Amino acid sequence: MVVSSESERFIADINTDFPEWYQDVVRKADLAESSPVAGCMTIKPYGYALWENMVRILDDAFKESGHQNLYFPALIPESYLQREAEHVEGFAPECAYVTHGGGKELEERLVFRPTSETIIWQTYARWIESYRDLPLLYNQWANVMRWEMRPRLFLRTREFLWQEGHTAHATQEDAIRETLQMVGIYRTFVEESLALPVYMGEKSAAERFAGAVNTYAIEAMMKDRKAIQAGTSHFLGQNFAKAFDVTFQNERGEREYVWGTSWGVSTRLVGTVVMGHGDEKGLSLPPRVAPIQVVIVPIYREDSKDRVMSAAAQIAADCRRDGIRVKVDERDQLKPGFKFNDWEMRGVPLRMELGPKDLDKDQCVVAERVTGQKEPMPLSGLVDALARKLGETQRAMYAAAEVFRAANTYDVDDYGDLTTLMDQGAFVRAHWCEGPECEAKIKADTTATIRCIPEELRGPGKCVVCGADSPGRVIVAKAY
Amino acid sequence: MVVSSESERFIADINTDFPEWYQDVVRKADLAESSPVAGCMTIKPYGYALWENMVRILDDAFKESGHQNLYFPALIPESYLQREAEHVEGFAPECAYVTHGGGKELEERLVFRPTSETIIWQTYARWIESYRDLPLLYNQWANVMRWEMRPRLFLRTREFLWQEGHTAHATQEDAIRETLQMVGIYRTFVEESLALPVYMGEKSAAERFAGAVNTYAIEAMMKDRKAIQAGTSHFLGQNFAKAFDVTFQNERGEREYVWGTSWGVSTRLVGTVVMGHGDEKGLSLPPRVAPIQVVIVPIYREDSKDRVMSAAAQIAADCRRDGIRVKVDERDQLKPGFKFNDWEMRGVPLRMELGPKDLDKDQCVVAERVTGQKEPMPLSGLVDALARKLGETQRAMYAAAEVFRAANTYDVDDYGDLTTLMDQGAFVRAHWCEGPECEAKIKADTTATIRCIPEELRGPGKCVVCGADSPGRVIVAKAY
Repeated sequence: MVVSSESERFIADINTDFPEWYQDVVRKADLAESSPVAGCMTIKPYGYALWENMVRILDDAFKESGHQNLYFPALIPESYLQREAEHVEGFAPECAYVTHGGGKELEERLVFRPTSETIIWQTYARWIESYRDLPLLYNQWANVMRWEMRPRLFLRTREFLWQEGHTAHATQEDAIRETLQMVGIYRTFVEESLALPVYMGEKSAAERFAGAVNTYAIEAMMKDRKAIQAGTSHFLGQNFAKAFDVTFQNERGEREYVWGTSWGVSTRLVGTVVMGHGDEKGLSLPPRVAPIQVVIVPIYREDSKDRVMSAAAQIAADCRRDGIRVKVDERDQLKPGFKFNDWEMRGVPLRMELGPKDLDKDQCVVAERVTGQKEPMPLSGLVDALARKLGETQRAMYAAAEVFRAANTYDVDDYGDLTTLMDQGAFVRAHWCEGPECEAKIKADTTATIRCIPEELRGPGKCVVCGADSPGRVIVAKAY
Repeated sequence: MVVSSESERFIADINTDFPEWYQDVVRKADLAESSPVAGCMTIKPYGYALWENMVRILDDAFKESGHQNLYFPALIPESYLQREAEHVEGFAPECAYVTHGGGKELEERLVFRPTSETIIWQTYARWIESYRDLPLLYNQWANVMRWEMRPRLFLRTREFLWQEGHTAHATQEDAIRETLQMVGIYRTFVEESLALPVYMGEKSAAERFAGAVNTYAIEAMMKDRKAIQAGTSHFLGQNFAKAFDVTFQNERGEREYVWGTSWGVSTRLVGTVVMGHGDEKGLSLPPRVAPIQVVIVPIYREDSKDRVMSAAAQIAADCRRDGIRVKVDERDQLKPGFKFNDWEMRGVPLRMELGPKDLDKDQCVVAERVTGQKEPMPLSGLVDALARKLGETQRAMYAAAEVFRAANTYDVDDYGDLTTLMDQGAFVRAHWCEGPECEAKIKADTTATIRCIPEELRGPGKCVVCGADSPGRVIVAKAY
């Protein structure tokens, strides 16, 4: 890996230039970079390891809830996309087309999948015969392509990595239960593993997935007080079943259309972690997904090098045995102070400093990335103590994110207040009459959108825009 | 999942129609099917789970040997591919091109990666400055596209899944060491995890990867006595470094070109397992990679159902706790005899039969897929006994494959014998003078090729074709 020089490590100020800060952190922490292919990114090893840790936790949760992985082709005949009217309208403008293969022009253009509902439902038509075949609870990990015009690393890239679950059910109730279960699994993941609280709820009709009856989303607050949609789960009704003629014979021998869901999260979650926890020093990673949870920085002169390095190696081996992801920074040409800054910028939760004087006292010094606190820790019982500290850090990061969100979330009943807050950056909980005109007005006036309609905010009131009756408050925010 | 009827489960005879047998097994064991996209396959959950188990073992081995994963874009500018002359000649005919994106014709066509050397070396040019940046030991798991004209599930599909390692080194020796290390890791994986012995060796110039200085491969024997190339590792010399101007400053301050390697295995390994171990009953899976290692078939009448099912659930829970992949076949509408055949066809290594009479005797009956042997096993200590039996099965499968290969491998010194054996199907170990004409003659006469040049068969002799001096025997076989 290229060792950055001091000057290269400078990152923009998070408070005054958040977008630049984000780009700096992503690049300088070696998470990803723009690739030579316009709009596509190269995910570097550190960023990819972060994604891999997310994948592992999510994949386990999918399997525990009865899902299996499979794999559908990346290329989809253009005609499939056109079978579901809303779907093609939503996705066609951002499609990339393969037109030539094997030296010939193709008879039908193929779309690099922007999402796979169409090819999957085309196939489900053959796989589903009877109620006994249902449910199908399938997921795939895949790359997708959407021709974004203003790409940003992890947040909006033309190619990104994701998982897409596609399930088929005999009844509407089963499909709705699945839709809610999956958005719930995303919520648990983002809250417990990424240490970010989210609002979970239905999307308004305007913000729905193209082809869905209902879309549910989780929305997290970033450090610039904007929202990010971190995961979505769609109740597809019988829309794709009808478009692809997917029916089953029920227990009474009658043919019915199948009910569907789809749900996904993507490498956007990496951007979510960066913007949800980062600070003026750079990245700050929750221990559960951090590629390196503890970095050991050995401090030595020539005469103490062997002793310090062998103690560091021993501690690292002990940590690994207990499943702690640890790294010894063995770079000889760099000073400890440089290394401290470097690992802080890269967001490693715990930094251990280990020198000959520490060893004399059978201790090391451990600094927490999040609080900046530093304390000596005895070498005896160290691994358990580190594991405990990692758990504390995970909880502290969630708590801090919750405090931050609470401090920037407002119940608002006056439209002027709403527009002012949208200028500042905030989550606003406002009553909405469910009218598309009021929703459109908010967007036109502020560029903010209704992020979701959380169940826990239901209750009568008056629409913040038009004053008509409202069934409850919704989350309004500017969003990525 | 669709429950197949008896008639659907019929598979062609392995001895008289191997290609048809292969297609039947892949489809009827639910590994994969042809997708609606010409030449591309849909990998079904059972096939994908098999691939996932392979991925996990390989990925661990890559990481243990110091490699990190990352991710490069799927689309590569056409001009990159043209930078390395041999490379473009080898790959251009099978490329698929993206020509339109976001509603516009692109200025430059993009190739759906057939392999990623070009985009990766273009990037390495920026990542590598000094000898301190080397080696780069990176790998990616990805989909690739090669426009095959005669596709076959898993063996040759237009899109397939694979990993591609791409490493960069300061010296030729380091790069060669890496090349050999990786083909060695593949060998260990295929022998120990897939239970198939392989020949490992260099490829002849004619069979080399387009752009490599040397290609090393492992070659396994399939049940029709043809060879399959199960993995390759390429020493790229400085070819890609020169094509993309990738240099580094050495310790003496001089600029040198970087040395490279690349190496890969793909979903073709699934086909390798099918054809390497299958038999007249269908699939037979080595326990280390089998998605289901033990299937429990409960046998009951209505009055004993609860008792049997709860015992089965308990055994399954105990197995899972010890890391055994187990499934209880709960399908109520099917008879045990049908289930026995079904799981045999799907290649599950161990089948457990559990009925009320077994429970009375505190035992179950376990049948081995490979030998067909059935024996009662006491319920006490069952999990350990099953784990032992799985280990025995793994070794027995390797041993059987070794016996099969030995019985079909011949040292041949007469060209007539070689052509006869190629008609029958066999591995022939024949002396070769290293002349491209002799190699071409074998291929023209028999369609067989020189599969690899194993180190252990080096030693002087006379070329089987022309009688000239030969430095050693090579493996000749027809191949997939």
